[in-house]
Amino acid sequence: RYGLAEQEDQIGVVTGLAWTSVGGDLLSIEALRLPGKGRMKTTGKLGDVMKESIDAASSYVRAIAPSIGVKPPRFDRMDIHVHVPEGATPKDGPSAGIAMVTSIVSVLTQIPVRKDIAMTGEVTLRGHVLPIGGLKEKLLAALRGGITKVLIPKENEKDLAEIPDNVKEGLTIVPVETVQQVLEHALVRKPEPIEWDEEAEEEAAAARAAMNPTAGAPGAIAH
Amino acid sequence: RYGLAEQEDQIGVVTGLAWTSVGGDLLSIEALRLPGKGRMKTTGKLGDVMKESIDAASSYVRAIAPSIGVKPPRFDRMDIHVHVPEGATPKDGPSAGIAMVTSIVSVLTQIPVRKDIAMTGEVTLRGHVLPIGGLKEKLLAALRGGITKVLIPKENEKDLAEIPDNVKEGLTIVPVETVQQVLEHALVRKPEPIEWDEEAEEEAAAARAAMNPTAGAPGAIAH
Amino acid sequence: RYGLAEQEDQIGVVTGLAWTSVGGDLLSIEALRLPGKGRMKTTGKLGDVMKESIDAASSYVRAIAPSIGVKPPRFDRMDIHVHVPEGATPKDGPSAGIAMVTSIVSVLTQIPVRKDIAMTGEVTLRGHVLPIGGLKEKLLAALRGGITKVLIPKENEKDLAEIPDNVKEGLTIVPVETVQQVLEHALVRKPEPIEWDEEAEEEAAAARAAMNPTAGAPGAIAH
Amino acid sequence: RYGLAEQEDQIGVVTGLAWTSVGGDLLSIEALRLPGKGRMKTTGKLGDVMKESIDAASSYVRAIAPSIGVKPPRFDRMDIHVHVPEGATPKDGPSAGIAMVTSIVSVLTQIPVRKDIAMTGEVTLRGHVLPIGGLKEKLLAALRGGITKVLIPKENEKDLAEIPDNVKEGLTIVPVETVQQVLEHALVRKPEPIEWDEEAEEEAAAARAAMNPTAGAPGAIAH
Amino acid sequence: RYGLAEQEDQIGVVTGLAWTSVGGDLLSIEALRLPGKGRMKTTGKLGDVMKESIDAASSYVRAIAPSIGVKPPRFDRMDIHVHVPEGATPKDGPSAGIAMVTSIVSVLTQIPVRKDIAMTGEVTLRGHVLPIGGLKEKLLAALRGGITKVLIPKENEKDLAEIPDNVKEGLTIVPVETVQQVLEHALVRKPEPIEWDEEAEEEAAAARAAMNPTAGAPGAIAH
Amino acid sequence: RYGLAEQEDQIGVVTGLAWTSVGGDLLSIEALRLPGKGRMKTTGKLGDVMKESIDAASSYVRAIAPSIGVKPPRFDRMDIHVHVPEGATPKDGPSAGIAMVTSIVSVLTQIPVRKDIAMTGEVTLRGHVLPIGGLKEKLLAALRGGITKVLIPKENEKDLAEIPDNVKEGLTIVPVETVQQVLEHALVRKPEPIEWDEEAEEEAAAARAAMNPTAGAPGAIAH
Ligand SMILES: [Ca+2]
Ligand SMILES: [Ca+2]
Ligand SMILES: [Ca+2]
Ligand SMILES: [Ca+2]
Ligand SMILES: [Ca+2]
Ligand SMILES: [Ca+2]
Ligand SMILES: [Ca+2]
Ligand SMILES: [Ca+2]
Ligand SMILES: [Ca+2]
Ligand SMILES: [Ca+2]
Ligand SMILES: [Ca+2]
Ligand SMILES: [Ca+2]
Repeated sequence: RYGLAEQEDQIGVVTGLAWTSVGGDLLSIEALRLPGKGRMKTTGKLGDVMKESIDAASSYVRAIAPSIGVKPPRFDRMDIHVHVPEGATPKDGPSAGIAMVTSIVSVLTQIPVRKDIAMTGEVTLRGHVLPIGGLKEKLLAALRGGITKVLIPKENEKDLAEIPDNVKEGLTIVPVETVQQVLEHALVRKPEPIEWDEEAEEEAAAARAAMNPTAGAPGAIAH
Repeated sequence: RYGLAEQEDQIGVVTGLAWTSVGGDLLSIEALRLPGKGRMKTTGKLGDVMKESIDAASSYVRAIAPSIGVKPPRFDRMDIHVHVPEGATPKDGPSAGIAMVTSIVSVLTQIPVRKDIAMTGEVTLRGHVLPIGGLKEKLLAALRGGITKVLIPKENEKDLAEIPDNVKEGLTIVPVETVQQVLEHALVRKPEPIEWDEEAEEEAAAARAAMNPTAGAPGAIAH
Repeated sequence: RYGLAEQEDQIGVVTGLAWTSVGGDLLSIEALRLPGKGRMKTTGKLGDVMKESIDAASSYVRAIAPSIGVKPPRFDRMDIHVHVPEGATPKDGPSAGIAMVTSIVSVLTQIPVRKDIAMTGEVTLRGHVLPIGGLKEKLLAALRGGITKVLIPKENEKDLAEIPDNVKEGLTIVPVETVQQVLEHALVRKPEPIEWDEEAEEEAAAARAAMNPTAGAPGAIAH
Repeated sequence: RYGLAEQEDQIGVVTGLAWTSVGGDLLSIEALRLPGKGRMKTTGKLGDVMKESIDAASSYVRAIAPSIGVKPPRFDRMDIHVHVPEGATPKDGPSAGIAMVTSIVSVLTQIPVRKDIAMTGEVTLRGHVLPIGGLKEKLLAALRGGITKVLIPKENEKDLAEIPDNVKEGLTIVPVETVQQVLEHALVRKPEPIEWDEEAEEEAAAARAAMNPTAGAPGAIAH
Repeated sequence: RYGLAEQEDQIGVVTGLAWTSVGGDLLSIEALRLPGKGRMKTTGKLGDVMKESIDAASSYVRAIAPSIGVKPPRFDRMDIHVHVPEGATPKDGPSAGIAMVTSIVSVLTQIPVRKDIAMTGEVTLRGHVLPIGGLKEKLLAALRGGITKVLIPKENEKDLAEIPDNVKEGLTIVPVETVQQVLEHALVRKPEPIEWDEEAEEEAAAARAAMNPTAGAPGAIAH
Repeated sequence: RYGLAEQEDQIGVVTGLAWTSVGGDLLSIEALRLPGKGRMKTTGKLGDVMKESIDAASSYVRAIAPSIGVKPPRFDRMDIHVHVPEGATPKDGPSAGIAMVTSIVSVLTQIPVRKDIAMTGEVTLRGHVLPIGGLKEKLLAALRGGITKVLIPKENEKDLAEIPDNVKEGLTIVPVETVQQVLEHALVRKPEPIEWDEEAEEEAAAARAAMNPTAGAPGAIAH
């Protein structure tokens, strides 16, 4: 089943698109949320650029946490593990960035990812989608693997001219500019934002710390 | 006795199957649980891919901990050591993934592993079993080593056509798709699940922390 | 849009200028502030020299924190992530130093950076601007990318003689000697300084610690 | 005196057997117990395989600690240093495994090691003894060095056929299958086991922690 | 202005002397003191030997802290960052040792360094000044850069015979044997020592810790 | 003065003997004790074998701490820095082991080292002195450098036959077997041992910890 679209909508599982010397391929990306201490673990023989794209995806998600219904301090009480099977195949490059974001958001919100969607695009720290290479090979792999909708960077729209008609007819191709657009297409429902006033929260924490100047001080002792 | 099936059902000891340039071999995998702080140690001249497969196995097990009767916070009070003798022989690859999972589950639940079973298959973070290479050599090594039942990935079932009849007759070959199926075959009894409401547990912990805002604060001091 | 001036004034996003064997290029630098513990993360396939220039920028900003309205202890409660897309392109060198400072100051003060400005210059720990190479190529890239104002090191002013007239006419070129001058040009408004008496603050902290000799002690409990 | 049997029974000093391109040699292994925090230090220009065999030995000993009279929490209050002189000579391989175990057990129990014994054998995490290479050269070195008894892996018993008679006459050669057998021969007296109910101890610790939800909280203060 | 003497007396900025295949050069060394936890950061493409000379300088200064008016525990509440611009130029060697010491002492005491002085010399852990190479090239660079006084190791005094007269006339060359002599020449005023009885301080801390055996205990609660 | 005997008895400064392709040399070894947390820092372009010999020296000294008047817990409140000038010269090998021990003992006890003594010998974890190479070259360097007494390993005594008579007449050559003998010759006075019952101390600490189950609990609160 590897190299094919997923069979059901799953939490934390996203289909990316790889481009190698021998053509395109589906890339299954899995994220898992574990009780922990805010650590990020990555496995699957990932190169440094792909690891950095997971770092960027992770920081972006932490920065927008309230908009997807996650209180920032929760990050300190969980670990996130991102794994890309097949473990013996080296993978690299930044173009799985938006898939990494989607995977992490899905696992944090516990909202499943649509099973018949694939995506490719580098992500910036501010959630913009940057262009990628190998569009043709990636779309061919998506079609072959049973994918029905593919998200591509808006800046790659111009490359669609060179894509064979049968591919463009077999796939719904959606150019995206921001991660917000990615999430709207990929998640089965929209995350509900919460209120979070960072300044206020931070001041409250600082105030508590001031009342209890050193770590380990009691909060309030009433006699 | 090395290279042969185990002589008794043991806790944390699983027989994997290796495939090298000179043929297949049995691979004894040992896990040990120690009082500790949630660390994972691996030894046995393991390559990066095999180490990552242990990481993935470990995260998978942590994620399903309640379903095998283990409260997630227990992981913070133990270390797990996975060792693959013979220490001078380099080992690598992801195909021992399901054996790693089985070994860790056995040691956590203290349920022994059946001595006459061997297994091969890459594991994903969600407990799916991915296909492996060298099926023929591995099955031959299993037969030679006195194994009676071998678990193989469902996606390798098609390769059974090329396996000699005497091997297929001498072994019970079981194709598996998920780690759940692996554990049902490999453990001498089924682990008993416990209830664990992660959200509730986390909120309770957060509430306790809020009452005692900084680490080290007394819970309540009544005078 | 990559390789072009930004489309709006943004917080933490600064346009630097790169110089490679194939000419000049715009370099988008992004900083993000996250709840954290004073860690600095850098991504974007950055070489050691560029990473060190981020370290120097960061220390400089920490040292002048009160002058931009930031209390030094706040650094212990946040992480800063600096990312330079495109993630697959290696980047190196010290000449993005003043852009790094600007990006970090912007994200700390939440004051946006002017969208039509670009800058190049190494920064010292004391906020002096040191000269850079490739001035001509960098200015050409700025003009091409829609930039209207470029900050350059004062010590590179002598190199302006070799710059084509159309470039000098199309761009406002501002030689700068200090980071203070950089920030005045780049930020949409001036940060407001706060009072901060380091000695006094440190003595107060030491006094609290002395009263509570070991970590975890209550400040004062009067009955 | 290096290369010769020890002159007295010592705590933590064990004679291993090395096999190099120029023949066999005695290998003095020293362990030291220090007040500390559960760290393991290894020195003596040891290769990765030998370091891993010390890791495996250490985990095995921690796992059987109560059977040698050591309460598991004591490991958190000591460091262990294993050193193999001569510091300029590179050493590697797993065959000193049982000597490492013996050295660590001796230093933990403060029971001396018999001075006229040498040993060779890889150890597994469960204390089984695996076969080694170079038996003949090792036995010759033992005889030459004044050793009177040598422990060898049971699985190497078959290799004794090729050993010259004078060597077999000059040495008491004892095939062993488990570390328990090794310790019976090597230590001057048997360690006394203690009772240790891991589950009960862990539950007690968890109960104390629950009563004092965050680190640093007093157990109960009644007035 | 890089490569020239400083224009004013500055805190933490010291002019060292480099010797490369293309001649001598001025080396500006900058130290910064930041609120922190006793960490030392070094940047500027420094080789291992130069980093170690900063380590040695730092330990020397910590050891003599009371003699320059700094209480040893203050080191635990600050970080020190030493940077050597220009960030793209590799630098190495031990001969900036006394400049490193001077820079660190200046930043700790907030006493400025004389702007027209340069210095070269390796430093030992006890503050002795060891000889260096390239004296001639270094003195030429100093003269060229507008320096008026150069501190050199006493053991290099014999090399002054080969220095051209115009250099010796243009510079005040001061041979030094100890860091004490260096600081007297380089700082605009002498640091004031404080009393510090290490034994007494340590015993007091131990006594407090004994009364509050584990971290987090209240010092004294009187009712 | 480098390469010559010291001019006065100093605390923590020991003269070792190096042997290189160009002959023997004096090696000045410096140790410094700093307020800290039990860390060991080494500088001076030291190779791995020399660093390991410092590790072994350090563990040996910690193990015998009470016999030189040092309470083991003091190690947790200090750092030790061992530096070997000249920082640009690579140094390696185990033969400075006994000099490292002497340097560390001197700095811990604050007892000076005799200025006219040099020493060479590998040290084991139990304080035995192992033989070294290059005896002749080392003794020549000692004589040349103004040393009057040299400590050598007992096992090198046999090599004295090849040493020229004038060297043997110009130096007092003392063969040593143990570090105890080394310290008797090298320190200007004998350290005074203290009583230290490790078991009792550890039990007392464990008892305190049991009364205050988690870190941060008050020791005793009397009302
Ligand atoms: Ca594939
Ligand atoms: Ca699948
Ligand atoms: Ca076996
Ligand atoms: Ca085998
Ligand atoms: Ca570009
Ligand atoms: Ca843009
Ligand atoms: Ca011996
Ligand atoms: Ca030998
Ligand atoms: Ca220069
Ligand atoms: Ca300057
Ligand atoms: Ca000297
Ligand atoms: Ca020398």
